[in-house]
Amino acid sequence: MKQLTIILTLLLFANVNAQTDQDVLKTIYTQSLTNGKSYQWLDHLSNKIGGRLSGSENAEKAVQYTKSELEKLGLDKVWLQPVMVPKWVRGDKEVAHFITNSSTVDVNICALGGSIATPKNGLTAKVIEVQNFEELSVLGEEKIKGKIVFYNRPMQADLIQTFMAYGGCVNQRYAGAMEAIKYGAVGVIVRSMNLRQDDLPHTGSMSYGDLPNNQHIPSAAISTNDADKLSEALKKDSNLKFYFKQNCQQFDDVLSYNVIGEITGTEFPNQYMIVGGHLDSWDLGDGSHDDGAGVVQSMDVLRLLKESGIKPKHSIRVVLFMNEENGLRGGKKYSEEAKANKETHVFALESDAGGFTPRGFSFDCSDANFEKVLSWKPLFKPYLIHYFEKGGSGADVGPLKTTSNVLAGLRPDSQRYFDHHHAANDTFDAVNKRELELGAATMTSLIYLFDKYGVDNIPEVKEFKN
Amino acid sequence: MKQLTIILTLLLFANVNAQTDQDVLKTIYTQSLTNGKSYQWLDHLSNKIGGRLSGSENAEKAVQYTKSELEKLGLDKVWLQPVMVPKWVRGDKEVAHFITNSSTVDVNICALGGSIATPKNGLTAKVIEVQNFEELSVLGEEKIKGKIVFYNRPMQADLIQTFMAYGGCVNQRYAGAMEAIKYGAVGVIVRSMNLRQDDLPHTGSMSYGDLPNNQHIPSAAISTNDADKLSEALKKDSNLKFYFKQNCQQFDDVLSYNVIGEITGTEFPNQYMIVGGHLDSWDLGDGSHDDGAGVVQSMDVLRLLKESGIKPKHSIRVVLFMNEENGLRGGKKYSEEAKANKETHVFALESDAGGFTPRGFSFDCSDANFEKVLSWKPLFKPYLIHYFEKGGSGADVGPLKTTSNVLAGLRPDSQRYFDHHHAANDTFDAVNKRELELGAATMTSLIYLFDKYGVDNIPEVKEFKN
Repeated sequence: MKQLTIILTLLLFANVNAQTDQDVLKTIYTQSLTNGKSYQWLDHLSNKIGGRLSGSENAEKAVQYTKSELEKLGLDKVWLQPVMVPKWVRGDKEVAHFITNSSTVDVNICALGGSIATPKNGLTAKVIEVQNFEELSVLGEEKIKGKIVFYNRPMQADLIQTFMAYGGCVNQRYAGAMEAIKYGAVGVIVRSMNLRQDDLPHTGSMSYGDLPNNQHIPSAAISTNDADKLSEALKKDSNLKFYFKQNCQQFDDVLSYNVIGEITGTEFPNQYMIVGGHLDSWDLGDGSHDDGAGVVQSMDVLRLLKESGIKPKHSIRVVLFMNEENGLRGGKKYSEEAKANKETHVFALESDAGGFTPRGFSFDCSDANFEKVLSWKPLFKPYLIHYFEKGGSGADVGPLKTTSNVLAGLRPDSQRYFDHHHAANDTFDAVNKRELELGAATMTSLIYLFDKYGVDNIPEVKEFKN
Repeated sequence: MKQLTIILTLLLFANVNAQTDQDVLKTIYTQSLTNGKSYQWLDHLSNKIGGRLSGSENAEKAVQYTKSELEKLGLDKVWLQPVMVPKWVRGDKEVAHFITNSSTVDVNICALGGSIATPKNGLTAKVIEVQNFEELSVLGEEKIKGKIVFYNRPMQADLIQTFMAYGGCVNQRYAGAMEAIKYGAVGVIVRSMNLRQDDLPHTGSMSYGDLPNNQHIPSAAISTNDADKLSEALKKDSNLKFYFKQNCQQFDDVLSYNVIGEITGTEFPNQYMIVGGHLDSWDLGDGSHDDGAGVVQSMDVLRLLKESGIKPKHSIRVVLFMNEENGLRGGKKYSEEAKANKETHVFALESDAGGFTPRGFSFDCSDANFEKVLSWKPLFKPYLIHYFEKGGSGADVGPLKTTSNVLAGLRPDSQRYFDHHHAANDTFDAVNKRELELGAATMTSLIYLFDKYGVDNIPEVKEFKN
């Protein structure tokens, strides 16, 4: 009988606890969908400020704007964390065409971030098309020297998770120049990382590795439609001439900032849980999905916690990282300072996969902590949040990884993401208000649960187990 | 030992079966994403034909086009099923404004489908704003007679499933005139069924019930931005005058068609499984989401079955229904003919909730059949298909319901759907190719599984149980 009483008491306790969490999540989602601030903030970031390339005036405006908005939220602390960032500037819009059978075909390109300019009057050369680095080594210097290497391996359409398709292609963009230089190429053109056929070139970071400046060659992305056009033309005329002109320039590093706000924890003020996105963006669009969405969602997490009457036990920080796109200096800096100040970061969540309908999260953590996450799945079901998988988190929070903490990344629907990623159409109109707000609520809910139950394996949450 | 052998054999058999289904689904999804036809068909329906209101020339073009495309697929049979449909025509674009404090404010409206026109020179009257029919009865004839009733109850933003929010509002549009007529109203203006704030009016069907023609009053939808504007103005000036002019007209019924294609079953040719969408649309946009998407996905289901080398045991039909929007004549006709011909319809699936990323299905079926569906969940997990719930199916397939068969509706992500639904921006550019193709593959996979395992509770599929 006594055993039964204990069991019934435990069940009752479990039920009360479950009920409470359900209620809290309902409050959070309702707040976000009826009284959210994320969309309004994004409107300002995107339409009043615009693209926020590291080191630019816009990036500085975004720092000041988000700091001042965080200051209005009544957090316990808001501050700027200085960080030196690279400054790369695109300059005048790029132009390109190819000439075949005495006709000139204009194509849409953009310089890759970090690339050098072409000579002032542009660069003209023959083109050699390849799918990967192995082909380069087979062709060798004889076939490549003096030519523009055209990387044309498309994103794999049958992969359901588009980030996998991106991962399968992006080495062409990032390391394409480094590899082509080995064989005497004079320039690089890369098929845009885009699953859709359209006319927009997609920029993104590239690197020359340790190669000395005098070996660097100009590198650009070409739209998917024009990549196909060029490839078709090359089949008919392998001697066609490609011309491009770009005017980008790398300057000395400049001072910028991570923007940080904090709600100090009531029980564990020295244990930090952070949520963030990156404040910088590429320059072609206004960076609404990448990563304006993650910035405003992360800001709204702290506001939603307050509005929902949640007083977190751990210190919760929003961190708006600078320079994710072309250097990751903000993420590295935050982690260095955290280590230097002996701050224990028990949990870190990043939203950097677009402002689309959230599906769930990816987790970088121990099996025990992942089991705990899985026990919360039923709480998320009413919100159609179903994706809880082990995997990566986010570039900016990655450096915070320890053996015991939990890193997570929001995983929104990814089907449209690469239509916009790093391109001129990454703009405010491509973000849906409700989808953005659902993401903010989902993030807030996860933070609420991790704050309440901690990152250890606490027995009393077992009853939620699916 | 013998028992163990039997168990091991069963397990092996189970595993082989599971492996096979996994492979088939992989083939179906890969086909759809790399070699799908749905997007190309939708391009034609939307951009070459356009809006397909029942009884219009465009609707007839869509009948002929889809029939001819189905004929190219090498199906066993393709035919047209005649059906008489209503013909309502919008006429010239509507105009509306309100006058307050001697200033005129233009607003965006559109006639509701089935509404009568205003008098030739328009209609001017005072406005009474209400949230629901109960308010009407409280106000009574004294406060309503001679006025325009303005229904302004918004869709509920905190409902995660937007179709629930639609369901909570749509009586204002469908029955608003019927109710307002009781109290002597002279016209009806309804807040558009849209979760977003914008300038687009959203049409949709309305009814006068059994009221005689001479009691009918003109009814229109107003954009969400203008509904708010009007509501604000009414707070300051309850005597403001509202003017609107619309030129719509109801003609006699005309002959149209359901378009049907069939792959005849190898084992149960007299048992039918159907998949469909509706070929008609509203006239303001080109009907890409509602329901061009469902049409082309359903067509591609039969093509994908063939391309994937699947020879179905049951007869599989694609049915492109005419007149879902303002009469459901096609759905009713198909069901009547099925009954008259004693055709056994064991399964019917409709896609009529937009061409967005599929989440899963809603099922109208017995518990036993639903248990079977749940046993297939793991097969869909790689495709992020997670939503399997009991509920409604689709308007067109609804009349086919029996006590033993299974009806289902595709359930795509619904967050953006009502931004476009019945409005001028339900256009091709709002449909993402991959999202559309994922829907077609998901539908094909469900048909494949129901064809293979039937609609009864077959023990050997139990091993897939989650």
